[in-house]
Amino acid sequence: MSNKPVLNTVLSPRLLDLYDISNSIVVIIDVFRATSTIATALYNGAAKVLPVDSVAKCIELGKITGGITAGERDGKVVEGLQHGNSPAEYPREFINGQTLVLTTTNGTKLLHMALERGASDVITGSFPNLSAVCDYLLSENKNVILGCSAWKDRVNLEDTLFAGAVIQRVKENFTIHCDSSLMAEEMYTQHQDDMYRFIRKTTHWHRLSAYGLEKDLEYCVTPDVANVLPVYENGALIVK
Amino acid sequence: MSNKPVLNTVLSPRLLDLYDISNSIVVIIDVFRATSTIATALYNGAAKVLPVDSVAKCIELGKITGGITAGERDGKVVEGLQHGNSPAEYPREFINGQTLVLTTTNGTKLLHMALERGASDVITGSFPNLSAVCDYLLSENKNVILGCSAWKDRVNLEDTLFAGAVIQRVKENFTIHCDSSLMAEEMYTQHQDDMYRFIRKTTHWHRLSAYGLEKDLEYCVTPDVANVLPVYENGALIVK
Repeated sequence: MSNKPVLNTVLSPRLLDLYDISNSIVVIIDVFRATSTIATALYNGAAKVLPVDSVAKCIELGKITGGITAGERDGKVVEGLQHGNSPAEYPREFINGQTLVLTTTNGTKLLHMALERGASDVITGSFPNLSAVCDYLLSENKNVILGCSAWKDRVNLEDTLFAGAVIQRVKENFTIHCDSSLMAEEMYTQHQDDMYRFIRKTTHWHRLSAYGLEKDLEYCVTPDVANVLPVYENGALIVK
Repeated sequence: MSNKPVLNTVLSPRLLDLYDISNSIVVIIDVFRATSTIATALYNGAAKVLPVDSVAKCIELGKITGGITAGERDGKVVEGLQHGNSPAEYPREFINGQTLVLTTTNGTKLLHMALERGASDVITGSFPNLSAVCDYLLSENKNVILGCSAWKDRVNLEDTLFAGAVIQRVKENFTIHCDSSLMAEEMYTQHQDDMYRFIRKTTHWHRLSAYGLEKDLEYCVTPDVANVLPVYENGALIVK
């Protein structure tokens, strides 16, 4: 029998507790756009990113840390915060050396669930840092959960596609008996060469394209344009 | 704007409560093998099928109704019951006119959840009765939930593929803004011509093939070989 570590894909936070995640690496995936923005801010020199689940906490931590507060709801910057969820808002000349306090809903919720359930390592994944994630998973020889943040717990295509991209690259090193993983990999393999076209079919695209975010969403499915590894330590995501 | 009814796919019972299912038709899908067996028994003349969630209830209802008790756990007939979950056990000469009391775990749980949450109509779907399901959905002009029973709440491939088969046939008549539906349809479209080969990749296949059930599983992905519509009324699935 194989001694390879086990990899599972969790398509919604609602399904996380079906898996034993102790001693596992959990990859938090929120492609549109939280984890893409986290990778981008850190790639461009942010000292750290503090993911928080409410606007009030975002404002409070912004004051305490002197950090930049950011968050959107329905595609608009939240009143009381300074910036939005777009990775394009965080170029090096703006974010270098800064702390970013980012309030998101789906991704932050899943991250806290993973910590509460005893994950040994929590990292964030997105196409902009695809290779960094894969390299890390291949180097650690631990069980892996690819955790899709989904949208209000509903399965979404973009997070599933990223899980598939990871699986395609790391599968030889893992034991995978997981139909979600099989579907994710197939969906990605089918569409890796037409991602810009294909993501126009997602429900998220239809929700946000009205706000003129096409360029943003295309960036968020472009591999390795912000290739760092965000690791969660002591309440913050930092580059490791 | 479109006035078409809305169709959503629910990949696990855990996700059912994310949707308003009142006034909706819920299609219970448990391809390996509960809903395939239900269609087959009714097609072969069973008077009704009583789906129950425990062995004790199965034995009790068997006594009360004089019905045939059936159920498996881990591929073996449960002690105290008469028959298993295989559709092959229910040919016409055996089941015609009989009541079948069937204990299943995943499918029965989802069925009862759908009733509790106020579904207006509950039917069961499987490849053996694919066309009957599609014809019904097309005739009713109501919102639809394609409910995958999954395996212990984990998303599975075979139920997702059946959802995809339905979507491929009915989608022009529904409003579908649902990434799960999009994935289901793609997976089915990719594999409709090599289903016998493809299902050998499912985790369920690996669980059950040790019990020599290959022929059973192949039957369960063959369209329209038991083409009736099982409808849930007053505690029983009957042909409508």
